[in-house]
Amino acid sequence: METRPGSETGAGITAFEDGQRRERRDRLATEEPLEIRVSLAGHSRTVAVTMRTPGADFELAVGFLFAEGVIERPDQVAGISYCRDTDLPPDQLYNIVIVELDPTLRPDLSPLERHFHMTSACGVCGKATLDAIELRGIAPVAAPTALKPDTITELPERLRAGQTVFSSTGGLHAAGLFSAEGQLIAAREDVGRHTAVDKLVGWALLDGRVPLDDHILMVSGRSSYEIAQKALVARIPTLCSVSAPSSLAVDVARRFGMTLIGFVRDARFNVYAGAERIG
Amino acid sequence: METRPGSETGAGITAFEDGQRRERRDRLATEEPLEIRVSLAGHSRTVAVTMRTPGADFELAVGFLFAEGVIERPDQVAGISYCRDTDLPPDQLYNIVIVELDPTLRPDLSPLERHFHMTSACGVCGKATLDAIELRGIAPVAAPTALKPDTITELPERLRAGQTVFSSTGGLHAAGLFSAEGQLIAAREDVGRHTAVDKLVGWALLDGRVPLDDHILMVSGRSSYEIAQKALVARIPTLCSVSAPSSLAVDVARRFGMTLIGFVRDARFNVYAGAERIG
Repeated sequence: METRPGSETGAGITAFEDGQRRERRDRLATEEPLEIRVSLAGHSRTVAVTMRTPGADFELAVGFLFAEGVIERPDQVAGISYCRDTDLPPDQLYNIVIVELDPTLRPDLSPLERHFHMTSACGVCGKATLDAIELRGIAPVAAPTALKPDTITELPERLRAGQTVFSSTGGLHAAGLFSAEGQLIAAREDVGRHTAVDKLVGWALLDGRVPLDDHILMVSGRSSYEIAQKALVARIPTLCSVSAPSSLAVDVARRFGMTLIGFVRDARFNVYAGAERIG
Repeated sequence: METRPGSETGAGITAFEDGQRRERRDRLATEEPLEIRVSLAGHSRTVAVTMRTPGADFELAVGFLFAEGVIERPDQVAGISYCRDTDLPPDQLYNIVIVELDPTLRPDLSPLERHFHMTSACGVCGKATLDAIELRGIAPVAAPTALKPDTITELPERLRAGQTVFSSTGGLHAAGLFSAEGQLIAAREDVGRHTAVDKLVGWALLDGRVPLDDHILMVSGRSSYEIAQKALVARIPTLCSVSAPSSLAVDVARRFGMTLIGFVRDARFNVYAGAERIG
């Protein structure tokens, strides 16, 4: 019988506390590679292999392709399936997702090679990275509605309430989509921050909710360039995290009109871009 | 004048606390892309582009190539330099590192393509990932000496003491190399967990300290597959973190004889593999 991997894995551990040693069972966040393939007019090609927590794999694949600019609308996805090669060992059956694209689509897959195959002589820098976003034709986000400070300070608790008990203990990252009034719309979890966001945005895209104007994205970890870029592509104007943003995340937010908030803890938070919307 | 990017970037922010709004300056962890090129017998090739915090870039490049199996010994590195293309804009001068390899070396660069160019029909899974490590000829770590519980519980504080004040506030990840007795040997910081580890291992390799038998690697975040794999390649038998390990990190540790410890907080910690060495 096939066993589909879950988001949690049980493990026997040895717990030490104040010099005492105790054997017990614990739960681990499952980490497995996911291979994402794109199928176009009968030809299939692997475009990414990423570590992730099994679950919401179709949404993850779609969210990844959307963030990378391969697809822009849900109707460009003709089908999504796990690879069913008959020679696959059982434990690999759920680690390959094939996204079949609309056969009329002519996607540019070259940006997917940037991570490992940049050959340009002119190098890379934060500014070049931002320029690359603009070259993809991505405009600043729409002028969003005002946000109340109380809405911001309540986000972490509302995100935790939307997580499983397990993930809120630190085993998984979480990404939550909220309305401008702070209502939790959906939350997704993963061992990776960026894959949690891909799952969330992929769900929203398939559900016809993108562009996500006037929404808030709240992540449990830090805000890096990659997180800010994924929010921007989904047109989410507000990005919040419980921890610090990076310099490049701030640059993305300022260049594209986003509000970027960090260190949302207790009754305080810091605004790194777009503070004029709050109050 | 060229300005070399630092690990911190200043930014004006708006701090909200208990309804009060205050403008102030803050420090951000600098995030910039680094392009790593390998030069062999006069031919140069880009093998990776990774986000990172500027600083210790040569060590990062070497540590990355070592973890990926491109180099195995420091004498295989003939030289390391920043790219000095005269047509580079000033802000890109320090974002490209060229590692010149011993011209007699015949490195296998194909594993570097795994992330984005897997074409095998037989798929990927955690087990396949572990098998791939074994195929690289990496043996289990040497049987290490015993560890005292007190040594483990003191690691987080000793790592914090070795960090800058800024990074210990949450802006940067830290990776620390310790002796089996818990003495801090070196610490490196970065916006990324894996790049912090690459900087640390790259330094150790260039300093002639690898294999790192009987050492402890302590990381500030979670232990993922990638962190465990990097520790294994450097022959570090003990991996500790203040947070949770993933299922695949535990699998790597158990398969290769490592001791994996998580949730090191106050006077307690959990041991996920190799607990027999502690006590």
